[in-house]
Amino acid sequence: MTTDTVTKQIAFEVEIGGCTVRVGGMAKGSGMVHPNMATMLAFITTDALISAPALQAALSSSVDKSFNMISVDGDTSTNDSVLAIANGMSGCPEIMPDTPEFEAFAAALDAVCVELAKMVVRDGEGASKLIEINVNGAKSDQDACLVAKAIATSNLVKTAVFGEDANWGRIVCAVGYSGAAVDPNRIDVKIGGIKMCENGESLEFDEELASEILREREVVIQVDLNLGEGRARVWTCDLTYDYVQINASYRS
Amino acid sequence: MTTDTVTKQIAFEVEIGGCTVRVGGMAKGSGMVHPNMATMLAFITTDALISAPALQAALSSSVDKSFNMISVDGDTSTNDSVLAIANGMSGCPEIMPDTPEFEAFAAALDAVCVELAKMVVRDGEGASKLIEINVNGAKSDQDACLVAKAIATSNLVKTAVFGEDANWGRIVCAVGYSGAAVDPNRIDVKIGGIKMCENGESLEFDEELASEILREREVVIQVDLNLGEGRARVWTCDLTYDYVQINASYRS
Repeated sequence: MTTDTVTKQIAFEVEIGGCTVRVGGMAKGSGMVHPNMATMLAFITTDALISAPALQAALSSSVDKSFNMISVDGDTSTNDSVLAIANGMSGCPEIMPDTPEFEAFAAALDAVCVELAKMVVRDGEGASKLIEINVNGAKSDQDACLVAKAIATSNLVKTAVFGEDANWGRIVCAVGYSGAAVDPNRIDVKIGGIKMCENGESLEFDEELASEILREREVVIQVDLNLGEGRARVWTCDLTYDYVQINASYRS
Repeated sequence: MTTDTVTKQIAFEVEIGGCTVRVGGMAKGSGMVHPNMATMLAFITTDALISAPALQAALSSSVDKSFNMISVDGDTSTNDSVLAIANGMSGCPEIMPDTPEFEAFAAALDAVCVELAKMVVRDGEGASKLIEINVNGAKSDQDACLVAKAIATSNLVKTAVFGEDANWGRIVCAVGYSGAAVDPNRIDVKIGGIKMCENGESLEFDEELASEILREREVVIQVDLNLGEGRARVWTCDLTYDYVQINASYRS
């Protein structure tokens, strides 16, 4: 059994050593947990010539920016897997770590992983909207990640987005309890590019424009802590009646 | 504005130094976050004679076992408060720390705080059921707390209870990602007293009896990690359509 509703595939090409190298992938996943069943799986293929350790290094880095940065419901699965295989059929010279070629390959791999991860969230159980959360200005990347994940797993933020309400107060609240270093008087929050909170204070904004932006299928939340250079980007989805239906009535 | 649907009050009497001492309290709270509005508040009164530091010590200990052990939706509020005041009017001798009288008073205060905290959860936004989670056999109390809170904040566990399904797999999954030391081959799980999982393996159980127990308004989940003496008790509520409705459509 699966609750996936769409197929999730993506491929990119990148020039390496005069050859066209392809990086493609496919994924499944919708709810994070279905014990006894496969949960989130992603398989990535490339015709690059690259050693297993170098590919693993690139993959681990990509996964940290993509699959480890999504949340449908906060429930980590027991059996998520991301695998990559390379067969060298592109004819490109071997891609060695710490070279411009490695960087080019890693960028393509990043793009594949990020797009697949977003497809998983967009198809999250019951989801009607994809929410991208960008946190900047944290003391460290780890702090930015704490803040972004606190927002991404807040049921109150996720229901507000489902209700198409620009409730930046719930976002600031999640920032506050995230555990990251925060100065409440320096926080800026934008939803869909509209600044709603500056230095922790409410701004006047066009409520009608905000409603219009929140009716879109993708909503971008930007938080700037104005404390440093740390940043993180996380994707989640809204929390809907359908999520409850799928997970409360799956046996009937 | 408040989403509380019932008043939450409780009082106990305890004999101290030949006098009857009363400890009473009242609380409000239903969703954990309503920025700009009061969220969870609890006020406790007693006619005991007790110094402010001694009362604070007893209160902090009680709060750790009660209000800090509940979760409606995982969203910590910016403005939860628990206050206790004592006026000495019972005529009891002053209650000094590290005495049997202090223990007796602390037990009454514990009982008031636990009952109020449970009232808050029982009246959680959209809740149809109170869920009590008892974790035993952890390596430490901190580990037990991690496990109990992971279960209590799992949307998948909370929707399963709303759906009246004995899905112990989702419970074991939350145990696994809690961060506590766990041996999957030693975990026992009971729901409503029925053992469903022993040493990490599925047991045959009476599905009809399980359904009957899950139709009750209160559901007890027991997890034994069989690794040590650590234990914790946490209360939460189920995740329902009404929770989504309250938090997505509060403006209309």
